[in-house]
Amino acid sequence: MRVSVVGGSVVPDPVEAIAEDVGRLLAQRGHTVVCGGLGGVMEAACRGAKDAGGTTIGILPGEDRSEANQYVDICLVTGLGHARNALVVMNADAVVAIDGSGGTLSEIGFGNVFDRPIAGIRTPSLSGLERFRSCKTPEDAVQFIEEESKNTA
Amino acid sequence: MRVSVVGGSVVPDPVEAIAEDVGRLLAQRGHTVVCGGLGGVMEAACRGAKDAGGTTIGILPGEDRSEANQYVDICLVTGLGHARNALVVMNADAVVAIDGSGGTLSEIGFGNVFDRPIAGIRTPSLSGLERFRSCKTPEDAVQFIEEESKNTA
Amino acid sequence: MRVSVVGGSVVPDPVEAIAEDVGRLLAQRGHTVVCGGLGGVMEAACRGAKDAGGTTIGILPGEDRSEANQYVDICLVTGLGHARNALVVMNADAVVAIDGSGGTLSEIGFGNVFDRPIAGIRTPSLSGLERFRSCKTPEDAVQFIEEESKNTA
Amino acid sequence: MRVSVVGGSVVPDPVEAIAEDVGRLLAQRGHTVVCGGLGGVMEAACRGAKDAGGTTIGILPGEDRSEANQYVDICLVTGLGHARNALVVMNADAVVAIDGSGGTLSEIGFGNVFDRPIAGIRTPSLSGLERFRSCKTPEDAVQFIEEESKNTA
Repeated sequence: MRVSVVGGSVVPDPVEAIAEDVGRLLAQRGHTVVCGGLGGVMEAACRGAKDAGGTTIGILPGEDRSEANQYVDICLVTGLGHARNALVVMNADAVVAIDGSGGTLSEIGFGNVFDRPIAGIRTPSLSGLERFRSCKTPEDAVQFIEEESKNTA
Repeated sequence: MRVSVVGGSVVPDPVEAIAEDVGRLLAQRGHTVVCGGLGGVMEAACRGAKDAGGTTIGILPGEDRSEANQYVDICLVTGLGHARNALVVMNADAVVAIDGSGGTLSEIGFGNVFDRPIAGIRTPSLSGLERFRSCKTPEDAVQFIEEESKNTA
Repeated sequence: MRVSVVGGSVVPDPVEAIAEDVGRLLAQRGHTVVCGGLGGVMEAACRGAKDAGGTTIGILPGEDRSEANQYVDICLVTGLGHARNALVVMNADAVVAIDGSGGTLSEIGFGNVFDRPIAGIRTPSLSGLERFRSCKTPEDAVQFIEEESKNTA
Repeated sequence: MRVSVVGGSVVPDPVEAIAEDVGRLLAQRGHTVVCGGLGGVMEAACRGAKDAGGTTIGILPGEDRSEANQYVDICLVTGLGHARNALVVMNADAVVAIDGSGGTLSEIGFGNVFDRPIAGIRTPSLSGLERFRSCKTPEDAVQFIEEESKNTA
């Protein structure tokens, strides 16, 4: 399935390491990584996925494809600015959110709107949100979204 | 200033009462209410604002102006679906979020992206989010966003 | 009714004069002017409408309300870039297109998509396009869209 | 390069045949077909491209990937309605427009906005539009956009 990996565009190294592990794990399990196409969590997730031979889709806020990070296979530009966050989520079957601030929160919100399972690593604990779970590790996160997806298939 | 009032389109009566109070208070203080133009929190906030002689703007997800609730003065259609949530927030100087689920969370996230002060009533407590405060009453919420806005003026 | 006046943001003086006349005439006939909120044809149409005591709505491509021309009463920002052209047309009941290039052509196209009557002054003659008419003067243009609108009311 | 093939979603058989030839020719020349992902010209262009072993991208107006025609390899949903026309054009380096009505006209307009070469087959003759040329055959259309693209490379 397609899995959106969302998080900040500028993050500390340990967060990048988590994102890279998530991307690698998703690719190893046969999933395609969807992301916002820029740096930070987005780039690390793509790098991990490519390292494992996976496929990556980047959905950019601007109009210029050259702004995509180098690990994006399929680049889509939108020119929509922050409203493109809705598209990043809509184009996947599940969401892994890592760290991040307002933009990531908007994407978790859209994950709920579009009824996607959402695993959050180092995000706010949104205990009331349906199909959302706070996870400690990339392995937990990927396991959660895979199981949740089975339940609705 | 313009203040977005965001929350669910179907909510229990006590939540509607809070939204109506928020709308009324905002209008009494000279603010314009911006919202998503539909029912629930959106309609209650507009009703409160109109009750106090205020002005209301509704920014709709669909293409048909007739879908706006009857208390919307100025109706803008977008045809963008849920991506219009970005516009509801972008078009105001501050945000009051009431109850709500994923859509409201996306709007709180956008409030942070666009650096707006955000008062949350009955929303998740997002303690790490800058310029966000959990508020107990409409009065607290309006006071918070007014003071925060002064600080950046 | 609401009428979108669309055209280039940088145009020669005679084109501005036409746009101003269209805006003035629309306001005199009780219509609200909708436009893209920037300069050129948009600003001239708003100036004409305000000169006649009318109301103007500007729907901007960017995120910053201060980019609106000074004759816009109600400013809505979108952050959508050129995709906002769809909203400029969707938010009106008829379209007057003046001169202009690709952006204007996209708005004429959307006028057809949303089944609006469209009067074109100094635009390409799109003879096959339904509900489109090439007009010589502001008076002809306003008369055409008023009559066409009656036919569908 | 990426080439958008745009045109109506319901068209007569001879128009479908042209679109299929355009898609096949583009794929044979190593180009990727971008389109709106639905029926008519869009489906025929994708069918032609797949017949020649090419790659196709569909950018849909709705939120549901299953609405793509069966010849779309990479499906992106937008939920933007008609505003997605801007994305269909923005995501390619050149445009071939075939027949079509208002939607196609909006895409020709966006082609000009984004400074893409545009070949029109059976479209209105837009003689004043820069980098637009009316073409008689798929071969002429593909040759024109290839040459125009070289000039700006």
